[in-house]
Amino acid sequence: MAFEVHQRVLFRHCDPAGIVFYPRYFEMINDALESFFDQAIGAPWDQMHQNAGVPTAEISARFTAPSRQGDELTMRLEVNRVGRSSMDYTMGASAAGELRFEAKGTMVFVNHAGKSTPWPDKMRAKLQEQKELAA
Amino acid sequence: MAFEVHQRVLFRHCDPAGIVFYPRYFEMINDALESFFDQAIGAPWDQMHQNAGVPTAEISARFTAPSRQGDELTMRLEVNRVGRSSMDYTMGASAAGELRFEAKGTMVFVNHAGKSTPWPDKMRAKLQEQKELAA
Amino acid sequence: MAFEVHQRVLFRHCDPAGIVFYPRYFEMINDALESFFDQAIGAPWDQMHQNAGVPTAEISARFTAPSRQGDELTMRLEVNRVGRSSMDYTMGASAAGELRFEAKGTMVFVNHAGKSTPWPDKMRAKLQEQKELAA
Amino acid sequence: MAFEVHQRVLFRHCDPAGIVFYPRYFEMINDALESFFDQAIGAPWDQMHQNAGVPTAEISARFTAPSRQGDELTMRLEVNRVGRSSMDYTMGASAAGELRFEAKGTMVFVNHAGKSTPWPDKMRAKLQEQKELAA
Repeated sequence: MAFEVHQRVLFRHCDPAGIVFYPRYFEMINDALESFFDQAIGAPWDQMHQNAGVPTAEISARFTAPSRQGDELTMRLEVNRVGRSSMDYTMGASAAGELRFEAKGTMVFVNHAGKSTPWPDKMRAKLQEQKELAA
Repeated sequence: MAFEVHQRVLFRHCDPAGIVFYPRYFEMINDALESFFDQAIGAPWDQMHQNAGVPTAEISARFTAPSRQGDELTMRLEVNRVGRSSMDYTMGASAAGELRFEAKGTMVFVNHAGKSTPWPDKMRAKLQEQKELAA
Repeated sequence: MAFEVHQRVLFRHCDPAGIVFYPRYFEMINDALESFFDQAIGAPWDQMHQNAGVPTAEISARFTAPSRQGDELTMRLEVNRVGRSSMDYTMGASAAGELRFEAKGTMVFVNHAGKSTPWPDKMRAKLQEQKELAA
Repeated sequence: MAFEVHQRVLFRHCDPAGIVFYPRYFEMINDALESFFDQAIGAPWDQMHQNAGVPTAEISARFTAPSRQGDELTMRLEVNRVGRSSMDYTMGASAAGELRFEAKGTMVFVNHAGKSTPWPDKMRAKLQEQKELAA
Protein backbone atom coordinates (compact mmCIF):
# COMPACT_ATOMS: atom_id res chain seq x y z
CA MET A 1 0.00 0.00 0.00
CA ALA A 2 1.17 3.49 -0.75
CA PHE A 3 2.31 5.82 2.03
CA GLU A 4 -0.51 7.89 3.59
CA VAL A 5 -0.75 10.81 5.97
CA HIS A 6 -3.81 12.36 7.54
CA GLN A 7 -4.22 16.10 7.71
CA ARG A 8 -7.13 17.94 9.28
CA VAL A 9 -8.03 21.21 7.56
CA LEU A 10 -7.41 23.94 10.12
CA PHE A 11 -8.54 27.53 10.48
CA ARG A 12 -5.11 28.81 9.40
CA HIS A 13 -5.37 26.96 6.06
CA CYS A 14 -8.57 28.75 5.00
CA ASP A 15 -9.19 31.98 3.15
CA PRO A 16 -12.00 34.58 3.23
CA ALA A 17 -14.08 32.27 0.99
CA GLY A 18 -13.89 29.67 3.78
CA ILE A 19 -11.89 27.18 1.69
CA VAL A 20 -8.26 26.11 1.72
CA PHE A 21 -5.98 28.77 0.24
CA TYR A 22 -4.02 26.71 -2.28
CA PRO A 23 -0.47 27.71 -1.18
CA ARG A 24 -1.40 26.00 2.12
CA TYR A 25 -1.90 22.76 0.15
CA PHE A 26 1.72 23.01 -0.96
CA GLU A 27 2.73 23.36 2.69
CA MET A 28 0.71 20.19 3.45
CA ILE A 29 2.42 18.40 0.54
CA ASN A 30 5.80 19.38 1.93
CA ASP A 31 4.85 18.21 5.43
CA ALA A 32 3.70 14.88 3.97
CA LEU A 33 6.97 14.42 2.08
CA GLU A 34 8.87 15.22 5.27
CA SER A 35 6.96 12.41 7.05
CA PHE A 36 7.55 10.12 4.10
CA PHE A 37 11.33 10.56 4.13
CA ASP A 38 11.37 10.21 7.90
CA GLN A 39 9.06 7.20 8.27
CA ALA A 40 9.19 5.31 4.97
CA ILE A 41 12.70 6.07 3.73
CA GLY A 42 14.46 6.27 7.09
CA ALA A 43 16.11 9.55 6.20
CA PRO A 44 14.88 12.13 8.71
CA TRP A 45 14.74 15.41 6.90
CA ASP A 46 16.26 17.40 9.74
CA GLN A 47 19.39 15.23 9.73
CA MET A 48 19.48 15.19 5.95
CA HIS A 49 19.34 18.98 5.72
CA GLN A 50 22.64 19.38 7.53
CA ASN A 51 24.58 18.29 4.47
CA ALA A 52 22.07 17.27 1.83
CA GLY A 53 18.53 17.99 0.80
CA VAL A 54 15.69 17.13 -1.53
CA PRO A 55 14.49 20.36 -3.14
CA THR A 56 11.48 20.32 -5.44
CA ALA A 57 12.41 20.91 -9.08
CA GLU A 58 8.90 20.83 -10.52
CA ILE A 59 5.38 20.54 -9.17
CA SER A 60 1.91 20.70 -10.65
CA ALA A 61 -1.49 20.44 -9.05
CA ARG A 62 -5.12 20.25 -10.08
CA PHE A 63 -7.65 21.39 -7.49
CA THR A 64 -10.77 19.35 -8.11
CA ALA A 65 -13.05 20.28 -5.18
CA PRO A 66 -12.71 22.77 -2.32
CA SER A 67 -11.84 21.73 1.26
CA ARG A 68 -13.23 23.41 4.36
CA GLN A 69 -12.15 23.71 7.99
CA GLY A 70 -12.67 20.46 9.86
CA ASP A 71 -12.32 18.25 6.76
CA GLU A 72 -10.08 15.25 7.32
CA LEU A 73 -7.80 14.84 4.32
CA THR A 74 -6.13 11.55 3.50
CA MET A 75 -3.02 12.27 1.47
CA ARG A 76 -1.65 9.30 -0.44
CA LEU A 77 1.85 9.38 -1.87
CA GLU A 78 2.93 7.23 -4.78
CA VAL A 79 6.51 7.04 -5.99
CA ASN A 80 6.35 6.84 -9.78
CA ARG A 81 9.97 6.95 -10.86
CA VAL A 82 13.32 6.67 -9.11
CA GLY A 83 16.14 8.21 -11.12
CA ARG A 84 19.85 8.46 -10.45
CA SER A 85 19.43 11.55 -8.30
CA SER A 86 15.72 12.41 -8.57
CA MET A 87 12.30 10.91 -8.04
CA ASP A 88 8.79 11.58 -9.33
CA TYR A 89 5.73 11.24 -7.15
CA THR A 90 1.98 11.68 -7.29
CA MET A 91 0.08 12.88 -4.27
CA GLY A 92 -3.70 12.66 -4.12
CA ALA A 93 -5.74 14.16 -1.28
CA SER A 94 -9.28 13.05 -0.56
CA ALA A 95 -11.90 13.70 2.09
CA ALA A 96 -15.27 12.02 2.46
CA GLY A 97 -14.49 9.90 -0.60
CA GLU A 98 -14.00 12.93 -2.85
CA LEU A 99 -10.72 13.89 -4.52
CA ARG A 100 -9.75 17.40 -3.46
CA PHE A 101 -6.47 17.77 -5.33
CA GLU A 102 -3.86 15.77 -7.15
CA ALA A 103 -0.25 16.87 -7.38
CA LYS A 104 2.73 15.57 -9.28
CA GLY A 105 6.25 16.54 -8.37
CA THR A 106 9.91 15.91 -8.99
CA MET A 107 12.41 16.08 -6.15
CA VAL A 108 16.17 16.08 -6.55
CA PHE A 109 18.77 14.82 -4.10
CA VAL A 110 21.44 17.49 -3.65
CA ASN A 111 24.61 17.81 -1.61
CA HIS A 112 25.39 20.67 0.79
CA ALA A 113 26.41 22.86 -2.16
CA GLY A 114 23.00 22.37 -3.77
CA LYS A 115 24.37 20.17 -6.59
CA SER A 116 22.40 17.10 -7.66
CA THR A 117 24.02 13.92 -6.42
CA PRO A 118 23.15 10.21 -6.77
CA TRP A 119 20.81 8.85 -4.07
CA PRO A 120 22.75 6.93 -1.40
CA ASP A 121 22.18 3.20 -2.03
CA LYS A 122 20.09 2.74 1.10
CA MET A 123 17.73 5.58 0.16
CA ARG A 124 17.45 4.42 -3.43
CA ALA A 125 16.55 0.89 -2.27
CA LYS A 126 13.82 2.24 0.00
CA LEU A 127 12.46 4.57 -2.71
CA GLN A 128 12.41 1.64 -5.14
CA GLU A 129 10.51 -0.40 -2.54
CA GLN A 130 7.94 2.40 -2.22
CA LYS A 131 7.64 2.55 -5.99
CA GLU A 132 6.73 -1.15 -6.05
CA LEU A 133 4.23 -0.74 -3.20
CA ALA A 134 2.51 2.00 -5.15
CA ALA A 135 2.39 0.08 -8.42
CA MET B 1 4.33 45.10 -22.25
CA ALA B 2 3.20 42.38 -19.93
CA PHE B 3 2.18 43.19 -16.36
CA GLU B 4 5.05 43.13 -13.85
CA VAL B 5 5.42 43.23 -10.11
CA HIS B 6 8.53 43.49 -8.00
CA GLN B 7 9.01 41.34 -4.95
CA ARG B 8 11.99 41.41 -2.64
CA VAL B 9 12.87 38.05 -1.12
CA LEU B 10 12.38 38.42 2.62
CA PHE B 11 13.57 36.50 5.66
CA ARG B 12 10.15 34.90 6.11
CA HIS B 13 10.28 33.40 2.59
CA CYS B 14 13.45 31.41 3.29
CA ASP B 15 14.06 27.95 4.70
CA PRO B 16 16.91 26.39 6.72
CA ALA B 17 18.88 25.99 3.47
CA GLY B 18 18.73 29.81 3.12
CA ILE B 19 16.66 29.69 -0.07
CA VAL B 20 13.01 30.43 -0.79
CA PHE B 21 10.71 27.66 0.48
CA TYR B 22 8.65 26.96 -2.62
CA PRO B 23 5.16 27.26 -1.05
CA ARG B 24 6.14 30.91 -0.43
CA TYR B 25 6.56 31.34 -4.21
CA PHE B 26 2.92 30.34 -4.57
CA GLU B 27 2.01 33.04 -2.05
CA MET B 28 4.01 35.53 -4.16
CA ILE B 29 2.19 34.34 -7.29
CA ASN B 30 -1.13 34.89 -5.58
CA ASP B 31 -0.10 38.37 -4.40
CA ALA B 32 0.96 39.22 -7.97
CA LEU B 33 -2.38 38.05 -9.39
CA GLU B 34 -4.16 40.12 -6.75
CA SER B 35 -2.24 43.22 -7.95
CA PHE B 36 -2.95 42.27 -11.55
CA PHE B 37 -6.73 42.10 -11.07
CA ASP B 38 -6.66 45.30 -9.05
CA GLN B 39 -4.39 47.40 -11.27
CA ALA B 40 -4.63 45.94 -14.78
CA ILE B 41 -8.16 44.54 -14.83
CA GLY B 42 -9.84 47.10 -12.59
CA ALA B 43 -11.46 44.42 -10.47
CA PRO B 44 -10.11 44.81 -6.93
CA TRP B 45 -9.97 41.36 -5.44
CA ASP B 46 -11.39 42.44 -2.09
CA GLN B 47 -14.55 43.79 -3.73
CA MET B 48 -14.75 40.84 -6.08
CA HIS B 49 -14.57 38.37 -3.21
CA GLN B 50 -17.81 39.61 -1.71
CA ASN B 51 -19.85 37.86 -4.36
CA ALA B 52 -17.43 36.34 -6.84
CA GLY B 53 -13.93 35.02 -7.01
CA VAL B 54 -11.16 33.67 -9.19
CA PRO B 55 -9.95 30.40 -7.66
CA THR B 56 -7.02 28.58 -9.18
CA ALA B 57 -8.04 25.33 -10.89
CA GLU B 58 -4.57 24.20 -11.93
CA ILE B 59 -1.04 25.38 -11.46
CA SER B 60 2.40 24.07 -12.31
CA ALA B 61 5.85 25.44 -11.64
CA ARG B 62 9.45 24.71 -12.52
CA PHE B 63 12.06 26.03 -10.12
CA THR B 64 15.12 26.72 -12.20
CA ALA B 65 17.49 28.44 -9.75
CA PRO B 66 17.28 29.19 -6.03
CA SER B 67 16.52 32.66 -4.64
CA ARG B 68 18.00 34.08 -1.47
CA GLN B 69 17.05 36.78 1.01
CA GLY B 70 17.59 40.24 -0.46
CA ASP B 71 17.13 39.14 -4.07
CA GLU B 72 14.85 41.45 -6.06
CA LEU B 73 12.47 39.37 -8.14
CA THR B 74 10.72 40.73 -11.18
CA MET B 75 7.56 38.75 -11.76
CA ARG B 76 6.10 39.06 -15.23
CA LEU B 77 2.55 37.93 -15.92
CA GLU B 78 1.36 36.94 -19.38
CA VAL B 79 -2.25 36.15 -20.16
CA ASN B 80 -2.18 33.27 -22.65
CA ARG B 81 -5.86 32.40 -23.11
CA VAL B 82 -9.15 34.01 -22.16
CA GLY B 83 -12.01 31.52 -22.06
CA ARG B 84 -15.69 31.95 -21.37
CA SER B 85 -15.15 31.77 -17.61
CA SER B 86 -11.46 30.98 -17.22
CA MET B 87 -8.04 32.25 -18.17
CA ASP B 88 -4.56 30.78 -18.54
CA TYR B 89 -1.44 32.65 -17.57
CA THR B 90 2.31 32.23 -17.43
CA MET B 91 4.31 33.87 -14.68
CA GLY B 92 8.08 34.06 -14.87
CA ALA B 93 10.23 35.36 -12.02
CA SER B 94 13.78 36.56 -12.56
CA ALA B 95 16.47 38.22 -10.51
CA ALA B 96 19.84 39.49 -11.70
CA GLY B 97 18.94 38.38 -15.22
CA GLU B 98 18.43 34.75 -14.20
CA LEU B 99 15.11 32.89 -14.34
CA ARG B 100 14.22 31.61 -10.89
CA PHE B 101 10.90 29.95 -11.64
CA GLU B 102 8.21 29.76 -14.26
CA ALA B 103 4.61 28.96 -13.41
CA LYS B 104 1.56 28.31 -15.52
CA GLY B 105 -1.92 28.47 -14.10
CA THR B 106 -5.61 28.43 -14.87
CA MET B 107 -8.03 30.62 -12.92
CA VAL B 108 -11.79 30.35 -13.07
CA PHE B 109 -14.34 33.09 -12.50
CA VAL B 110 -16.97 31.86 -10.04
CA ASN B 111 -20.07 33.33 -8.45
CA HIS B 112 -20.75 33.51 -4.70
CA ALA B 113 -21.83 29.84 -4.74
CA GLY B 114 -18.47 28.81 -6.19
CA LYS B 115 -19.95 27.93 -9.61
CA SER B 116 -18.04 28.91 -12.74
CA THR B 117 -19.67 31.87 -14.48
CA PRO B 118 -18.86 33.84 -17.65
CA TRP B 119 -16.47 36.76 -17.15
CA PRO B 120 -18.34 40.08 -16.99
CA ASP B 121 -17.85 41.85 -20.36
CA LYS B 122 -15.67 44.59 -18.88
CA MET B 123 -13.31 42.09 -17.26
CA ARG B 124 -13.14 39.96 -20.38
CA ALA B 125 -12.24 42.98 -22.49
CA LYS B 126 -9.45 43.93 -20.11
CA LEU B 127 -8.14 40.35 -19.95
CA GLN B 128 -8.19 40.22 -23.76
CA GLU B 129 -6.24 43.48 -23.85
CA GLN B 130 -3.63 41.99 -21.50
CA LYS B 131 -3.42 38.91 -23.69
CA GLU B 132 -2.58 41.11 -26.69
CA LEU B 133 0.02 43.06 -24.69
CA ALA B 134 1.72 39.82 -23.78
CA ALA B 135 1.73 38.39 -27.30
CA MET C 1 -4.28 17.85 34.19
CA ALA C 2 -4.13 20.74 31.77
CA PHE C 3 -4.87 20.26 28.08
CA GLU C 4 -1.84 19.28 25.98
CA VAL C 5 -1.05 18.97 22.31
CA HIS C 6 2.06 17.62 20.64
CA GLN C 7 3.63 19.42 17.73
CA ARG C 8 6.68 18.30 15.81
CA VAL C 9 8.85 21.12 14.50
CA LEU C 10 8.75 20.85 10.72
CA PHE C 11 10.91 22.20 7.91
CA ARG C 12 8.31 24.84 7.04
CA HIS C 13 8.49 26.30 10.58
CA CYS C 14 12.20 27.07 10.37
CA ASP C 15 14.15 30.07 9.13
CA PRO C 16 17.59 30.53 7.54
CA ALA C 17 19.14 30.31 11.01
CA GLY C 18 17.65 26.79 11.27
CA ILE C 19 15.35 27.69 14.16
CA VAL C 20 11.59 28.24 14.37
CA PHE C 21 10.56 31.58 12.87
CA TYR C 22 8.47 33.02 15.69
CA PRO C 23 5.32 33.88 13.67
CA ARG C 24 5.10 30.09 13.11
CA TYR C 25 4.85 29.66 16.89
CA PHE C 26 1.73 31.83 16.80
CA GLU C 27 0.30 29.53 14.11
CA MET C 28 1.05 26.56 16.41
CA ILE C 29 -0.66 28.37 19.31
CA ASN C 30 -3.72 28.95 17.15
CA ASP C 31 -3.77 25.29 16.04
CA ALA C 32 -3.55 24.20 19.70
CA LEU C 33 -6.44 26.48 20.69
CA GLU C 34 -8.47 25.07 17.80
CA SER C 35 -7.88 21.53 19.17
CA PHE C 36 -8.70 22.75 22.67
CA PHE C 37 -12.09 24.19 21.69
CA ASP C 38 -12.85 21.10 19.63
CA GLN C 39 -11.74 18.42 22.08
CA ALA C 40 -11.94 19.95 25.55
CA ILE C 41 -14.75 22.47 25.17
CA GLY C 42 -16.89 20.56 22.66
CA ALA C 43 -17.20 23.59 20.41
CA PRO C 44 -15.63 22.69 17.05
CA TRP C 45 -14.14 25.84 15.70
CA ASP C 46 -15.39 25.25 12.18
CA GLN C 47 -19.01 25.09 13.34
CA MET C 48 -18.48 27.99 15.69
CA HIS C 49 -17.08 30.20 12.94
CA GLN C 50 -20.32 30.09 10.99
CA ASN C 51 -21.97 32.47 13.40
CA ALA C 52 -19.54 33.14 16.19
CA GLY C 53 -15.84 33.19 16.87
CA VAL C 54 -13.11 33.59 19.44
CA PRO C 55 -10.68 36.22 18.14
CA THR C 56 -7.52 36.97 20.09
CA ALA C 57 -7.61 40.40 21.73
CA GLU C 58 -4.13 40.32 23.25
CA ILE C 59 -1.18 38.00 23.21
CA SER C 60 2.36 38.08 24.54
CA ALA C 61 5.18 35.60 24.29
CA ARG C 62 8.68 35.11 25.67
CA PHE C 63 10.99 32.93 23.59
CA THR C 64 13.34 31.27 26.05
CA ALA C 65 15.27 28.79 23.88
CA PRO C 66 15.32 28.07 20.15
CA SER C 67 13.59 25.03 18.59
CA ARG C 68 14.94 23.11 15.63
CA GLN C 69 13.45 20.83 12.96
CA GLY C 70 12.58 17.43 14.41
CA ASP C 71 12.03 18.72 17.96
CA GLU C 72 8.87 17.36 19.57
CA LEU C 73 7.09 20.19 21.37
CA THR C 74 4.60 19.55 24.14
CA MET C 75 2.27 22.52 24.34
CA ARG C 76 0.34 22.80 27.58
CA LEU C 77 -2.67 25.08 27.82
CA GLU C 78 -3.91 26.48 31.11
CA VAL C 79 -7.11 28.48 31.42
CA ASN C 80 -6.41 31.23 33.95
CA ARG C 81 -9.58 33.29 33.96
CA VAL C 82 -13.07 32.88 32.55
CA GLY C 83 -14.86 36.19 32.15
CA ARG C 84 -18.36 37.02 30.97
CA SER C 85 -17.29 36.92 27.31
CA SER C 86 -13.53 36.40 27.41
CA MET C 87 -10.90 34.06 28.79
CA ASP C 88 -7.22 34.27 29.64
CA TYR C 89 -4.82 31.42 29.05
CA THR C 90 -1.17 30.55 29.40
CA MET C 91 0.50 28.26 26.92
CA GLY C 92 3.92 26.81 27.59
CA ALA C 93 5.86 24.80 25.02
CA SER C 94 8.68 22.48 26.00
CA ALA C 95 10.90 19.94 24.27
CA ALA C 96 13.45 17.63 25.88
CA GLY C 97 12.53 19.08 29.28
CA GLU C 98 13.41 22.64 28.27
CA LEU C 99 10.94 25.53 28.04
CA ARG C 100 11.00 26.95 24.51
CA PHE C 101 8.36 29.66 24.86
CA GLU C 102 5.59 30.80 27.11
CA ALA C 103 2.63 32.75 25.81
CA LYS C 104 -0.29 34.47 27.51
CA GLY C 105 -3.40 35.45 25.65
CA THR C 106 -6.91 36.76 25.92
CA MET C 107 -9.65 35.48 23.62
CA VAL C 108 -13.10 37.02 23.28
CA PHE C 109 -16.32 35.29 22.32
CA VAL C 110 -18.01 37.28 19.54
CA ASN C 111 -21.18 36.92 17.53
CA HIS C 112 -21.38 36.91 13.72
CA ALA C 113 -21.14 40.71 13.70
CA GLY C 114 -17.87 40.58 15.62
CA LYS C 115 -19.40 41.98 18.84
CA SER C 116 -18.36 40.47 22.18
CA THR C 117 -21.12 38.29 23.61
CA PRO C 118 -21.45 36.23 26.81
CA TRP C 119 -20.16 32.66 26.55
CA PRO C 120 -23.01 30.17 26.07
CA ASP C 121 -23.60 28.41 29.44
CA LYS C 122 -22.30 25.07 28.20
CA MET C 123 -19.04 26.58 26.96
CA ARG C 124 -18.55 28.62 30.12
CA ALA C 125 -19.05 25.49 32.26
CA LYS C 126 -16.44 23.60 30.25
CA LEU C 127 -13.98 26.52 30.34
CA GLN C 128 -14.48 26.75 34.12
CA GLU C 129 -13.80 23.03 34.40
CA GLN C 130 -10.56 23.48 32.45
CA LYS C 131 -9.60 26.36 34.72
CA GLU C 132 -9.95 24.08 37.73
CA LEU C 133 -7.96 21.31 36.06
CA ALA C 134 -5.14 23.76 35.44
CA ALA C 135 -5.13 25.18 38.97
CA MET D 1 9.89 61.24 12.57
CA ALA D 2 9.70 57.57 13.38
CA PHE D 3 10.32 54.95 10.71
CA GLU D 4 7.23 53.92 8.75
CA VAL D 5 6.30 51.21 6.29
CA HIS D 6 3.14 50.74 4.30
CA GLN D 7 1.52 47.36 4.00
CA ARG D 8 -1.61 46.57 2.04
CA VAL D 9 -3.78 43.85 3.55
CA LEU D 10 -3.80 41.02 1.02
CA PHE D 11 -6.02 37.99 0.44
CA ARG D 12 -3.42 35.66 1.94
CA HIS D 13 -3.46 37.58 5.24
CA CYS D 14 -7.18 37.00 5.83
CA ASP D 15 -9.10 34.21 7.52
CA PRO D 16 -12.57 32.72 7.02
CA ALA D 17 -14.04 35.63 9.01
CA GLY D 18 -12.60 37.96 6.33
CA ILE D 19 -10.19 39.66 8.71
CA VAL D 20 -6.42 39.45 9.18
CA PHE D 21 -5.39 36.19 10.89
CA TYR D 22 -3.19 37.54 13.68
CA PRO D 23 -0.09 35.36 13.04
CA ARG D 24 0.07 37.21 9.70
CA TYR D 25 0.42 40.48 11.64
CA PHE D 26 3.57 39.04 13.21
CA GLU D 27 4.88 38.29 9.72
CA MET D 28 4.16 41.93 8.78
CA ILE D 29 5.97 43.10 11.93
CA ASN D 30 8.99 41.01 10.98
CA ASP D 31 8.95 42.35 7.41
CA ALA D 32 8.82 45.91 8.78
CA LEU D 33 11.78 45.27 11.10
CA GLU D 34 13.69 43.81 8.16
CA SER D 35 13.09 47.05 6.22
CA PHE D 36 14.03 49.07 9.28
CA PHE D 37 17.41 47.38 9.71
CA ASP D 38 18.05 47.63 5.99
CA GLN D 39 16.97 51.23 5.38
CA ALA D 40 17.29 53.04 8.71
CA ILE D 41 20.15 51.16 10.40
CA GLY D 42 22.17 50.31 7.29
CA ALA D 43 22.48 46.66 8.29
CA PRO D 44 20.77 44.59 5.59
CA TRP D 45 19.29 41.58 7.32
CA ASP D 46 20.43 39.16 4.64
CA GLN D 47 24.07 40.16 5.11
CA MET D 48 23.68 40.25 8.86
CA HIS D 49 22.23 36.73 8.96
CA GLN D 50 25.40 35.21 7.61
CA ASN D 51 27.17 35.62 10.91
CA ALA D 52 24.83 37.48 13.23
CA GLY D 53 21.16 38.03 13.79
CA VAL D 54 18.50 39.87 15.75
CA PRO D 55 16.09 37.27 17.12
CA THR D 56 13.00 38.39 19.01
CA ALA D 57 13.18 37.60 22.72
CA GLU D 58 9.75 38.90 23.69
CA ILE D 59 6.76 40.33 21.91
CA SER D 60 3.27 41.38 22.90
CA ALA D 61 0.40 42.75 20.87
CA ARG D 62 -3.06 44.18 21.42
CA PHE D 63 -5.45 43.90 18.48
CA THR D 64 -7.76 46.87 18.75
CA ALA D 65 -9.80 46.70 15.53
CA PRO D 66 -9.96 44.18 12.69
CA SER D 67 -8.34 44.78 9.28
CA ARG D 68 -9.79 43.61 5.99
CA GLN D 69 -8.42 42.87 2.52
CA GLY D 70 -7.55 46.07 0.68
CA ASP D 71 -6.90 48.10 3.85
CA GLU D 72 -3.72 50.16 3.66
CA LEU D 73 -1.85 49.84 6.94
CA THR D 74 0.73 52.37 8.05
CA MET D 75 3.11 50.70 10.44
CA ARG D 76 5.15 53.06 12.58
CA LEU D 77 8.19 51.84 14.44
CA GLU D 78 9.56 53.57 17.53
CA VAL D 79 12.79 52.56 19.19
CA ASN D 80 12.22 52.91 22.94
CA ARG D 81 15.41 51.60 24.48
CA VAL D 82 18.84 50.68 23.18
CA GLY D 83 20.69 48.30 25.49
CA ARG D 84 24.15 46.82 25.32
CA SER D 85 22.98 43.99 23.04
CA SER D 86 19.21 44.46 22.83
CA MET D 87 16.60 47.02 21.89
CA ASP D 88 12.94 47.60 22.70
CA TYR D 89 10.48 48.91 20.16
CA THR D 90 6.83 49.78 19.78
CA MET D 91 5.05 49.22 16.51
CA GLY D 92 1.61 50.69 15.89
CA ALA D 93 -0.42 49.90 12.77
CA SER D 94 -3.25 52.13 11.61
CA ALA D 95 -5.55 52.34 8.62
CA ALA D 96 -8.08 55.05 7.85
CA GLY D 97 -7.04 56.86 11.04
CA GLU D 98 -7.90 53.91 13.27
CA LEU D 99 -5.39 51.93 15.34
CA ARG D 100 -5.53 48.27 14.32
CA PHE D 101 -2.85 46.86 16.59
CA GLU D 102 0.01 47.89 18.78
CA ALA D 103 2.96 45.64 19.46
CA LYS D 104 5.95 45.90 21.77
CA GLY D 105 9.01 43.76 21.31
CA THR D 106 12.57 43.15 22.41
CA MET D 107 15.20 42.07 19.92
CA VAL D 108 18.65 40.82 20.81
CA PHE D 109 21.83 41.06 18.76
CA VAL D 110 23.48 37.63 18.59
CA ASN D 111 26.59 36.20 16.97
CA HIS D 112 26.65 33.20 14.63
CA ALA D 113 26.48 30.85 17.63
CA GLY D 114 23.25 32.49 18.79
CA LYS D 115 24.90 34.16 21.82
CA SER D 116 23.95 37.75 22.70
CA THR D 117 26.71 40.16 21.74
CA PRO D 118 27.12 43.95 22.06
CA TRP D 119 25.76 45.95 19.12
CA PRO D 120 28.54 47.06 16.77
CA ASP D 121 29.20 50.78 17.41
CA LYS D 122 27.81 51.85 14.04
CA MET D 123 24.55 50.01 14.61
CA ARG D 124 24.19 51.27 18.14
CA ALA D 125 24.69 54.86 16.97
CA LYS D 126 22.00 54.45 14.32
CA LEU D 127 19.59 52.80 16.77
CA GLN D 128 20.21 55.63 19.24
CA GLU D 129 19.47 58.15 16.47
CA GLN D 130 16.18 56.36 15.75
CA LYS D 131 15.34 56.41 19.44
CA GLU D 132 15.74 60.19 19.45
CA LEU D 133 13.66 60.59 16.30
CA ALA D 134 10.87 58.64 17.95
CA ALA D 135 10.95 60.56 21.23
